[in-house]
Amino acid sequence: MNGAQALIGSLTGAGVDVCFMNPGTSEMHFVAALDAVPEMRGVLALFEGVATGAADGYARIAGKPAAVLLHLGPGLANGLANLHNARRAGTPVVVIVGAHATGHVRYDAPLQSDIEALARTVSGWVHTSGHQRDLAQDAMRAVAAAQAGQIATLILPADVSWTEGAAVAPPRPAPPPSAPAASQLSAIGQLVTGGPATMLFLGGRALTERGLRAASRISAATGTRLLAETFPARLERGAGLPSVDRLAYLAESAETQLAGTENLVLAGARSPVSFFAYPGRASDLVPAGCAVTTLAGRDQDVEAALEELADLVAAGTEPVLAGPALLPAEPGPLNAVNLANTIAASLPEGVIIADEANTSGFALPMALAGAPRHSVLTLTGGSIGQGMPAATGAAVAAPDRPVLSLEADGSALYTIQALWTQAREQLNVTTVLINNAAYAILRMELARTAAGGEGGGKAGERAGRMLDLSGPTPDFTQISDGLGVPASRVTTAEELDKALRVAYSEPGPHLIEAIVPSIAPPPDAGAW
Amino acid sequence: MNGAQALIGSLTGAGVDVCFMNPGTSEMHFVAALDAVPEMRGVLALFEGVATGAADGYARIAGKPAAVLLHLGPGLANGLANLHNARRAGTPVVVIVGAHATGHVRYDAPLQSDIEALARTVSGWVHTSGHQRDLAQDAMRAVAAAQAGQIATLILPADVSWTEGAAVAPPRPAPPPSAPAASQLSAIGQLVTGGPATMLFLGGRALTERGLRAASRISAATGTRLLAETFPARLERGAGLPSVDRLAYLAESAETQLAGTENLVLAGARSPVSFFAYPGRASDLVPAGCAVTTLAGRDQDVEAALEELADLVAAGTEPVLAGPALLPAEPGPLNAVNLANTIAASLPEGVIIADEANTSGFALPMALAGAPRHSVLTLTGGSIGQGMPAATGAAVAAPDRPVLSLEADGSALYTIQALWTQAREQLNVTTVLINNAAYAILRMELARTAAGGEGGGKAGERAGRMLDLSGPTPDFTQISDGLGVPASRVTTAEELDKALRVAYSEPGPHLIEAIVPSIAPPPDAGAW
Repeated sequence: MNGAQALIGSLTGAGVDVCFMNPGTSEMHFVAALDAVPEMRGVLALFEGVATGAADGYARIAGKPAAVLLHLGPGLANGLANLHNARRAGTPVVVIVGAHATGHVRYDAPLQSDIEALARTVSGWVHTSGHQRDLAQDAMRAVAAAQAGQIATLILPADVSWTEGAAVAPPRPAPPPSAPAASQLSAIGQLVTGGPATMLFLGGRALTERGLRAASRISAATGTRLLAETFPARLERGAGLPSVDRLAYLAESAETQLAGTENLVLAGARSPVSFFAYPGRASDLVPAGCAVTTLAGRDQDVEAALEELADLVAAGTEPVLAGPALLPAEPGPLNAVNLANTIAASLPEGVIIADEANTSGFALPMALAGAPRHSVLTLTGGSIGQGMPAATGAAVAAPDRPVLSLEADGSALYTIQALWTQAREQLNVTTVLINNAAYAILRMELARTAAGGEGGGKAGERAGRMLDLSGPTPDFTQISDGLGVPASRVTTAEELDKALRVAYSEPGPHLIEAIVPSIAPPPDAGAW
Repeated sequence: MNGAQALIGSLTGAGVDVCFMNPGTSEMHFVAALDAVPEMRGVLALFEGVATGAADGYARIAGKPAAVLLHLGPGLANGLANLHNARRAGTPVVVIVGAHATGHVRYDAPLQSDIEALARTVSGWVHTSGHQRDLAQDAMRAVAAAQAGQIATLILPADVSWTEGAAVAPPRPAPPPSAPAASQLSAIGQLVTGGPATMLFLGGRALTERGLRAASRISAATGTRLLAETFPARLERGAGLPSVDRLAYLAESAETQLAGTENLVLAGARSPVSFFAYPGRASDLVPAGCAVTTLAGRDQDVEAALEELADLVAAGTEPVLAGPALLPAEPGPLNAVNLANTIAASLPEGVIIADEANTSGFALPMALAGAPRHSVLTLTGGSIGQGMPAATGAAVAAPDRPVLSLEADGSALYTIQALWTQAREQLNVTTVLINNAAYAILRMELARTAAGGEGGGKAGERAGRMLDLSGPTPDFTQISDGLGVPASRVTTAEELDKALRVAYSEPGPHLIEAIVPSIAPPPDAGAW
């Protein structure tokens, strides 16, 4: 068999049996090998950022990596932004980048560039395979590296792919998470008994059902406050689970949430910092004088650590679970609040929500706290254009779960091509495209610039035009129909409710364009 | 004034007065400063690859750099593919990448990444500005570096942008091109008198009117053959200019064109290599035993060198100019040949053609040889998704020239957001979107893979599905309307002719979706 066949056969043997791809000429032997190894499911994306974002969403739901196939340096470059988000999520991804044949590199042909340099900016593991004999082993090292919660990039020269004499390699065992030090446990046990001056800051796998239940027991028994990171890779939520607020995006709101904390205990989360710097404001959100202690890092078994801590300080107790509760959705023209409450009212049990609603989504966390149980995937790395690809990948990972893609107009237009893949694969994704005809978050930031009195002064007309998506306002129903996803437009809560119920009841993808006026979220608006 | 104001004021003082941008929070002070420096025209793009591709197209027509404003590492990553194409074109581009404030970097906030590492993969000059006092000088160094025909990337920390105490800097003189060595001239004069066994291989600025006229004189006087590089940054063409064939994309066709050449003289072009490697085929296209000599490299004044050579070997002669000539366009259903001939028949004088028609465009070079005079911009780096952005930038550079964007369905979907910028700026761009519902070039490559008998064997159904854009076939008229560009669909030569004439006669952008069955180009099909 040739290199490509051995590579794909080894990947599927290791459980990596989905490949999101946007191939080119140098990948043609990989593509051809899909017929020799039918266990591999190839999913075509029309833009590389869709493929990489889909791999991120897939792994967050499937709990195992997908492969991505990209075309030389420029193909990798187009996929980097969503690999950045995946890196910040700690998502395992196996990236395969086709390259020129080893003997062709010296000619500096038009598509030649430094693929390794690009790959290293997002990857924990990078290797250029040098020989078809070693390729399958290289791939198994890549899978094992990815399973540690990082991006592993395998660069595949065309001749290594096309040459005969390769063989399938067996999978390597996945690396186990390292255990937290037992000696910390009793010290942290002391801290959490201090009551509300201690805060348990949850991230990563602390936000699974297991992690949340243990954290809730600790909080209920000791008075320790709980807070989740702003943008979790995956958060389990809804009725029947403990409800934990997320740290606000805006630094001033976050400071309010963290005020009075004397001991911050990190459980799978990094110490909180502001998303951006602003003139005269601190980047570090930890209150002055507050001590920071780590219960478990992202590479450690945080679920087990939380359970051990719960057994230490809250033996025999039960977690506090959110009951089913829906906030009334005011009828009439849509706004950010009745939009959120309407979404909650029709939410199917077990839905996966890919949340890239940005400013338009500020009322969602409150609305969804008592909705049927769901998983939330968020924009971990801040690079917009992640939501629709992630929803696509999540739907591939869980064909039996509905996927709700909450998307903002500005973000949607980075990777709108995801709709085509949803149509091609007939994925059960319902997109609510919230159209406010603006980069609303930047309008808010520009206003903050002006209000701060530093430099910019009052925001002017020419600046405002750079953040305005009207003139022309994109028509997402036309764009969606054009990409093969049936679409409708709604302007009221009643229309949205009806359109959502239709979309959930029919197989395949749907898009609902929700026209919502642009407003700034209130300062106390949860994650925003 | 703050850093941003000094930066923009210095750029406009150096003639860089257009900025294609997709900003984020860290760029808000730059955006706010647009009102303080109205000489700078900000052009918003909804995806970074549109901004970078537009800057490439702009500079190819304007002959001077535009600026691009991008948002941190992920924003730069999204723009890299078209910067790759610009690098291969030798296009001057000043890229400004907003970054976290200098004091914020240490916190590794979600959007933090290695911007310099990304920038270095495409840039000839990279610098992170460290202080608002130095920012304007840094910008002037960037402009001078770009003017040497490369990408200059200036990384702009948010605090350097927002802090007061900056001042405008004067422009630096652009570096002159280095002169070719005079001693080479007489030796090359000997070579070209050898007749058709010598080939003058033209690229870069050898393809201006000046360069082409001089080359034509040399050829007419000596019998030396002329050939142009496959993918020129800009090629002047049409009636009244010398007509020069381009090297074919497919290696087997290129070998035929180059057969019999004993002396290859490079004038602004690199020595020809095949675009991709194939099993058993040479990468180097120079025939065995053929000597390669450089008249002028890309950084030298190739127009002057050609004129000196012409004066040496063809004193007093005139170039051979193409006369006006149109090939008849067969009426009825569109195919690649009557498509090209129909486009030629209605071509306005002085049109700029951004050609990313790929396989569907194989008949264009022949059809357009005797059409009204025009400039052709091609896909220099092989990273598709360049044509529509380049057309956008070209239209900004030359508002008095019509722009024809010849685009293929597969390529279009990488940077389709360019249509919105064309609508926003009401640019006179007519896009002919050739829809064959396939990655036709990859179908051809897959077939070549199979025909070669190496590895892949016969291309199978699962492989073919990865190259098939039907199921669903994108509807580009809907997508275009949704992005604000009025669109129509044509299936016959007569309909195309009518739609083109309407589009040229009306201001603002138009899109014509031309339904053309997918076919492989014939092996002797010029650039393909």
